[in-house]
Amino acid sequence: MKKYTFLVLLIAQVLNAKTGFSQAGKQPNFIIILADDLGYGDLSSYGHPTIRTPNLDKMALEGTRFTQFYVAANVCSPSRAALLTGRLPIRNGVFGTNSANKVFFTNSTSGLPHRETTLAKALKGKGYQTAIVGKWHLGSLPQFLPLNYGFDSYFGIPYSNDMGKEGFMAPRPGSPVTSNNPVLPLYRNEKVLETEPDQNLLTKRFTAEVTDLITKNKNKPFFIYYASPFPHVPLHASPDFAGKSKRGPYGDVVEELDWSVGQVLNKLKELKLDKNTFVVFLSDNGPWLMKSLIDENGGSSGLLYEAKASTYEGGMRVPAIAWMPGTVKNQISSAVATSMDLYPTILGLAGVEIPKDKPLDGNNIKDLLTGKTDKVTDIVYFYDANQLYAIRKGAYKAHFQTNASYSQKPAETHNPPLLYNLEHDPSEKFEIGKKHPEIIAELTAAFKKHVESVVPVEAELDKREAKK
Amino acid sequence: MKKYTFLVLLIAQVLNAKTGFSQAGKQPNFIIILADDLGYGDLSSYGHPTIRTPNLDKMALEGTRFTQFYVAANVCSPSRAALLTGRLPIRNGVFGTNSANKVFFTNSTSGLPHRETTLAKALKGKGYQTAIVGKWHLGSLPQFLPLNYGFDSYFGIPYSNDMGKEGFMAPRPGSPVTSNNPVLPLYRNEKVLETEPDQNLLTKRFTAEVTDLITKNKNKPFFIYYASPFPHVPLHASPDFAGKSKRGPYGDVVEELDWSVGQVLNKLKELKLDKNTFVVFLSDNGPWLMKSLIDENGGSSGLLYEAKASTYEGGMRVPAIAWMPGTVKNQISSAVATSMDLYPTILGLAGVEIPKDKPLDGNNIKDLLTGKTDKVTDIVYFYDANQLYAIRKGAYKAHFQTNASYSQKPAETHNPPLLYNLEHDPSEKFEIGKKHPEIIAELTAAFKKHVESVVPVEAELDKREAKK
Repeated sequence: MKKYTFLVLLIAQVLNAKTGFSQAGKQPNFIIILADDLGYGDLSSYGHPTIRTPNLDKMALEGTRFTQFYVAANVCSPSRAALLTGRLPIRNGVFGTNSANKVFFTNSTSGLPHRETTLAKALKGKGYQTAIVGKWHLGSLPQFLPLNYGFDSYFGIPYSNDMGKEGFMAPRPGSPVTSNNPVLPLYRNEKVLETEPDQNLLTKRFTAEVTDLITKNKNKPFFIYYASPFPHVPLHASPDFAGKSKRGPYGDVVEELDWSVGQVLNKLKELKLDKNTFVVFLSDNGPWLMKSLIDENGGSSGLLYEAKASTYEGGMRVPAIAWMPGTVKNQISSAVATSMDLYPTILGLAGVEIPKDKPLDGNNIKDLLTGKTDKVTDIVYFYDANQLYAIRKGAYKAHFQTNASYSQKPAETHNPPLLYNLEHDPSEKFEIGKKHPEIIAELTAAFKKHVESVVPVEAELDKREAKK
Repeated sequence: MKKYTFLVLLIAQVLNAKTGFSQAGKQPNFIIILADDLGYGDLSSYGHPTIRTPNLDKMALEGTRFTQFYVAANVCSPSRAALLTGRLPIRNGVFGTNSANKVFFTNSTSGLPHRETTLAKALKGKGYQTAIVGKWHLGSLPQFLPLNYGFDSYFGIPYSNDMGKEGFMAPRPGSPVTSNNPVLPLYRNEKVLETEPDQNLLTKRFTAEVTDLITKNKNKPFFIYYASPFPHVPLHASPDFAGKSKRGPYGDVVEELDWSVGQVLNKLKELKLDKNTFVVFLSDNGPWLMKSLIDENGGSSGLLYEAKASTYEGGMRVPAIAWMPGTVKNQISSAVATSMDLYPTILGLAGVEIPKDKPLDGNNIKDLLTGKTDKVTDIVYFYDANQLYAIRKGAYKAHFQTNASYSQKPAETHNPPLLYNLEHDPSEKFEIGKKHPEIIAELTAAFKKHVESVVPVEAELDKREAKK
């Protein structure tokens, strides 16, 4: 029997090598497509009744559609910093110490700390061509723009599309954006190409840039970070899409984004790069639901409670689809995973050694993607700015603090914490703490252990000019 | 040019005949699979994160998945009466005049009026073998059992699975079901086969009955009405499914129901009847969400507001999938359709002339199913018991009265009505009446016109014995 066991192991190893991510010795390419403020319920494959997303639905059918995928923060800047570093904002520095400083604003004087090794920088060291297309939002002063972080090229805007003259928040009393809004620049590398570009055309222009980059790099390994500025408000679609969706302007924008994803995947297929390119689509946080201010121009969290800026599920669980035909399994996965997992997963696939100088918060989820396992981790941390509000472990989530941005409920402390079973009750409707003191105890211990493990760094989002 | 126009029309006619529902002159078979209290958000293809429904997802991919499909009532009995007659409860008599009489109870002395022509009766006249498997709930006295309405066979229970000794509502103060619950009988035709059958085995037994009926009738046209008593509470799954779902007991039951649907479709494929059998899966109303009473044992309305017993979308918009490979188009359809459409559609396909003696409330949606059109009607009526609460016309819904069963808000009258754009805002979050007085006027006129058109009949659900 021992002889056979050895043979079986050998065959398994050979098969394993064959089902790896590299094709005929070629290094795999990577494309991350990040939507902005797209809600958990806004794609057809995630149950939206009137938004048509045939390209993303097809991507989901050909790959892995995640149903319990999280981001590391409930707003833009910290979520992006975590995605690119594999580390929680509280460790990489992209956090503020109060609710007015949750993202980089146009008067921010800081950016992503240069001590961080971004995905782009790590891949560049392994010979990858690296590019960012779209929204950066990790610092807008020259020294904090993308080319300082390992990106070979940049075509995009430095902050949110509402932070220029068109800033819809400007007229709002008490808005962090003053009516004296700066302009929205469109960068080509380190130069401002245009100011206040026609936002209706941004999706088309960014799509063309991405497909051009694919074509240009078809014989070299590449990493493209395509961070669409939409469906963040103000909503802008090109004439081909404006007014076409049953869902109104929000639907127009999502349907154009879906078209854009289709263009990218089709280009990969056309150039026969599809089997060697790992593509991930996800959102940076929950949808922006602001009653009376943007109403139906915000997205939908689907069955999840709450929205962007909250640590309830609607703020931090996002649609996420991974794709690489022949390698990433066709499956709907309810495994817990986070945007920070992309860092070690991608670096692992590229054969880059993970820098050991800093603690990582992501896990390599290759075995989830190929279907070899259905669980890599079961812990998720839910931060609001610099404070840990909640923790998920297994099926359970304990909220030690909550805020409800849509319902405009301010932060509230809970002792004992509120407890929910997210697998039974994804909508966080039925509080079950009283029935499960042992789970409260377990999650409280994990909560404390994590908080104690965090070594304080400076809060970069607090650094702002007084005026502007 | 005229010559060509004629030729084009001729070709179109030939193609049209070819894409009809009959195969080589054979009459098509029909199977309606009705789930009980399954919510809009409870299938994987409708966005549930932890319930696995691979068979229904496959059915959806091979057929038409509807995203704006409605039932005629927000609770069991009237919804079922409307499905089987193609007529609103207010016309067929299966309604009550107050909220205590919304369904048939075990002490009801009436049933579906015999003057109605059910789908079974109409098809039987055309040589169809007709069967009901599962829950009837249109009268439990002998003269109101299914064989009185055109069904050749009956294997099932006469009312809800909570109305026997296991009645979970029994201990509840003020419950319409007394603690002196009658037994739950399992019928074979007109005879009680068992009392209080093991509910854990019901799905398996009903599935075997349906697949046996298909085999037995493989050479004759048949109509099977498979009305599962689940996921209505009490939740019961067989040992193969109990404890297997991440979603808990509710998930176990839905996953077994999904398995059951798979068995039915596979049997059709095995006997090569799939291309000649029109199958529809739907739910009878929204999920039962009763805080503290059943909590997470109730389902999910997904992104829709409210639940069973409400006239908000969560109470009356249901998952609905139509299937007939080669004929029903592979599509996600956001066309408005209702359960009452099945009556004229199925009779049309079977070549049965629609009885002209009574007004019908359904429309023939054959052209929606084949993809020839994307709109047949755009009006939906939302009744609560005998009162019209709301109307949908196009994208808009006007609520003249509302009740919110989950939030336990009693009925409230609205003048002017509340107005929502369901295509932009399926969750009924953003009231827009003030901005659209002209739409309020249009919907108010349609509301009045409908109410005036209804000829009163007796309220059968009011007829109950005083005690029992």
